[in-house]
Order: sequence, then structure tokens, then C-alpha cells
Amino acid sequence: MATLTLSRARTIIRKTLEAGRERDLQPLAVVVLDAGGHVVAFERSDGASAGRFAIAHGKAYGAVMMGLPGSDLQARAAANPAFMGALNGAFGGAIVPVPGGILVRDARGRLLGAVGVTGDTSDNDAQAGQAGIEAARLVAEI
Amino acid sequence: MATLTLSRARTIIRKTLEAGRERDLQPLAVVVLDAGGHVVAFERSDGASAGRFAIAHGKAYGAVMMGLPGSDLQARAAANPAFMGALNGAFGGAIVPVPGGILVRDARGRLLGAVGVTGDTSDNDAQAGQAGIEAARLVAEI
Amino acid sequence: MATLTLSRARTIIRKTLEAGRERDLQPLAVVVLDAGGHVVAFERSDGASAGRFAIAHGKAYGAVMMGLPGSDLQARAAANPAFMGALNGAFGGAIVPVPGGILVRDARGRLLGAVGVTGDTSDNDAQAGQAGIEAARLVAEI
Amino acid sequence: MATLTLSRARTIIRKTLEAGRERDLQPLAVVVLDAGGHVVAFERSDGASAGRFAIAHGKAYGAVMMGLPGSDLQARAAANPAFMGALNGAFGGAIVPVPGGILVRDARGRLLGAVGVTGDTSDNDAQAGQAGIEAARLVAEI
Repeated sequence: MATLTLSRARTIIRKTLEAGRERDLQPLAVVVLDAGGHVVAFERSDGASAGRFAIAHGKAYGAVMMGLPGSDLQARAAANPAFMGALNGAFGGAIVPVPGGILVRDARGRLLGAVGVTGDTSDNDAQAGQAGIEAARLVAEI
Repeated sequence: MATLTLSRARTIIRKTLEAGRERDLQPLAVVVLDAGGHVVAFERSDGASAGRFAIAHGKAYGAVMMGLPGSDLQARAAANPAFMGALNGAFGGAIVPVPGGILVRDARGRLLGAVGVTGDTSDNDAQAGQAGIEAARLVAEI
Repeated sequence: MATLTLSRARTIIRKTLEAGRERDLQPLAVVVLDAGGHVVAFERSDGASAGRFAIAHGKAYGAVMMGLPGSDLQARAAANPAFMGALNGAFGGAIVPVPGGILVRDARGRLLGAVGVTGDTSDNDAQAGQAGIEAARLVAEI
Repeated sequence: MATLTLSRARTIIRKTLEAGRERDLQPLAVVVLDAGGHVVAFERSDGASAGRFAIAHGKAYGAVMMGLPGSDLQARAAANPAFMGALNGAFGGAIVPVPGGILVRDARGRLLGAVGVTGDTSDNDAQAGQAGIEAARLVAEI
């Protein structure tokens, strides 16, 4: 499988935070996970609330574990709340099924990992993350 | 109790994966548990997402612990969500009550264990698992 | 990163079980994890005790999370039991630090994942796993 | 309370990783927590093993929760293992009481947070972290 290097993860985070400032979003926090769901890098903007790591992580972790972006997980949770509750039991409560959990692929479609963005509305989080991923010349599935 | 040998478990898994490919399903993962809920064998197809073991296990584990297939567990969860939530408390969050958790019986109706299938829609998962169990000349209760 | 396909995982498991039988070992169980610590395949021989999945998994999981084979983890646990206890807290109790947790690399040294073997003595487990990995033309770090 | 800004956290991480490379250490991972124990930033070097976030976090979290650096926590664990075990019960297993968990203070002695470093020996981890903290013109208590 292709790799999500620390250098690429840094670019994604910086460009996502930059996109948030350009759009006047609330202070964001951004995590980058590899394809195995392990943290490569994380940054929390000054002014973002204390618990942002867990939320960013939960968005990205759900995406990479299920192979589905946050928007799809949110739709599944709405259609079948008990299923999402049970999934979270199986994964120790670590999944946050809302937009802002974004799959990251290379140009050939290979899964590199996932990005989790939190701080503003879920949709704004997702769009800032997409901008960050594309600035790193990678493909975002939001 | 009658036994679910490794040889039979291998047949079930191979035939379930084969049924998935024949029906053009998404890449599947399949677990076989014995009548005590302990893992006998598991395989995750290339391309299935990272978290598939926990989901396959949760489907099969719920079935064998409750003596009910995933479709019945799903109906109970819909009728009484608090009951399923409490059950998952008692079982450490390990039950995923949806189709794709399948009881396995021998020709005389004795419970041998359960199969958990995940990767496509829950109903498609269940049908692929049924095909795999029947190819092993055992009886599937989906 | 390079990949540990299901096909390769099957070969490792079969050859490990074969090596166990040739050496008259107790019935073995073998798990193969990818580089992210997620289960690719598992088989438990008939006659192996019910809890073998958790043990095989714990050996392989510790190896891949720490980047160290089971023999090194055992040495660290002996030198500093409190450290290993604390590590297990951080990893939810999922690490079993003894031989039989084996890193799997390709010919160029890239980490593909880990194998966990259990059923006989830890050293016999490790040697059977090494034979299985080498039969798949991969490199074992025991 | 004085604050550990993202800008300062980035400097600490970069300078710690730089110190590791200058000393030919194994690839490091570094986390920065604020005075409340919440993650501000984290980076895992390419080549560091998958589980490094949990270890780095456990070192820093123990330091900031107890107000003691990792070397003191290690000494307490050696003197009274049952106490450290009980602490980890109270903190959900999240404390890793070894060197590499470092308190960060400003020039007036106010606690800003903690840094956790992992990847090489615990003592080397601690020295690299100290170099990183001092490069950010802050005071390290290792």
C-alpha cells in the first residue's frame, strides 16, 4: 500500500488550517491517520476547545475503519441508529460518524489514510479538509 | 456438542468469498465462531476496509451468544433499543445486531456455531454466508 | 508500504500449522496482522483451547505496535515489569509480550505486518511461525 | 494559566525530532499536551512503529496529571508498584510512567503542559525532548 508520510501529513494540516482561516471558520483541529488508523500528525489551533483531539480522531478513525467517508457514515447512522451504536460498541466508542472524516487516496485511487477535521460546522470542516488534501496533491473523498 | 472443525470452517469461508465474487459484491470478510463464541477461522479479502474483523465478529458473536440470527437481533433492536443497548453493556459492546450474523447447525439441528459476514449490504452479506454454509453441507439460519 | 495479501497470509498460516505437525507440537493457532495491526487471517487447529485467538492476537499485536518481536518484548518486560504493565494499559490490555509474536518483512526489509503463533511452548511457537513465514518467501524477525 | 500555543508546540516537536536525528536516535514520535492534559500537537516520524501515539501520550499524560516528570513516576512505580497500578486504574490505563514524559514550564516556573517522546531508549527520548523544549526557550523538567 502507498504511504502517508509525515511530510505529506504536515502539508495537509497546514493547508486545512489555512483554508479555515481564509473562510473565517472557527478555530480548527486536524488529525491525519495512516491506512491502519494510527495517528501520523495532529494540530489544534489556539482557541479550539480542549476536547478536539477525540472528535477529529473519531471522524477520521470511523472513515478508515469502515472505508467510508463521514457523510456516508452519517447517512447510515440516520437510517439505522442501532447499527451505528453497535458499531461503536465493537470499536470501543471511537467512531464519530459525521462529515469531516475524509478518506485520502493517491492519484491511482489507493487508500493512504484519513483526515479528521473539527471546530466549525461538520460541512465546513469537511470542505476545509478537502482543500487541505487537494493542496497536498492527493484525492479527498468527503 | 457437535463440532465445527477447522476444515469445515475453511470450506465455509472459501465458499462465502466465492459467492461474494460471483455476485459482484464488495470485498468481504468472514469469521467462523464455534458454539462457545470462540474464533475458529477468519479471512479478510484484499480491498476490504481495515476494521472488518470487529464487524464480522460482532455479527457472529451476537448470534451465537443469543441463539438468534442477525435478522432476529435487528428486529429486537428496532422493537426495543434499550434492551439491545443493555445487552451490549453486558457483553462489553461486542454484539452487532444486523443480518450477516448466521447460526450454523448440522442436519440434525444441533448448533455448531455462527458465521459473521461483512463488506457489502447486510442482506447481501447474509446471502453470501448462507451460500457458503450450505456449500459445506450445513444448515444456515440467517 | 508493501502489502500482506490474503493469499500470502494463507500460505503463512498453512505452512506454520504444517511445521507444527512435523515437529509434533501441540495444536497451534496462527493469526496474521497487517502493518496497521488489523487481522487479515486466523486459523485455530482442532484441539487447540478456546482462548487461542486472544493469545495469538496479543503476540502479533504487541510486535507490530511496538516494532519489536516477542523475544524483545519479553526481555523488556523482564527488565521493567511496570513499563510493560503500563504499556498494556495504554493499549487496552491487548499486548502479550512473549516469543511467538513475529515481525514479517519483505526482502527489502519493509514491514508487512506480524504473525502470532500459540499452542505449544513460546519458543516452539516462534520457530513454527518462522518456518511458515520463510515458506512464503518472506523474512521473519522472531 | 500561561498557555502552550500551537506555535510553541510546533517548535518543540520540530526541535525534538531534529535533536533525535543529530544524535542518530531511532525515529521518534512527539506529543505536546496543554496543562489540562489535552493534545495540542503530535508528529510521528516515518519509520516509527504504528503504536507510538499511545506511548508518547501516556508518558506526557502521566506527567501532567501527576505534576511529576517521567523519571519521578518511574521511581514511584519501582518503590510502590501497587500505587502505580491503582493510579492507572483511576486514569483508565493512560499513564506510562517512564522517562520521556517531560513537564514544560515558562521562565517564571508556571506549568504550561507536558511533552511525551518515544522511539529510542527512555533516557534518549527524554534528552531529545529536553533539547526541543529548551530550543523553544521554555524550561524542561525531565
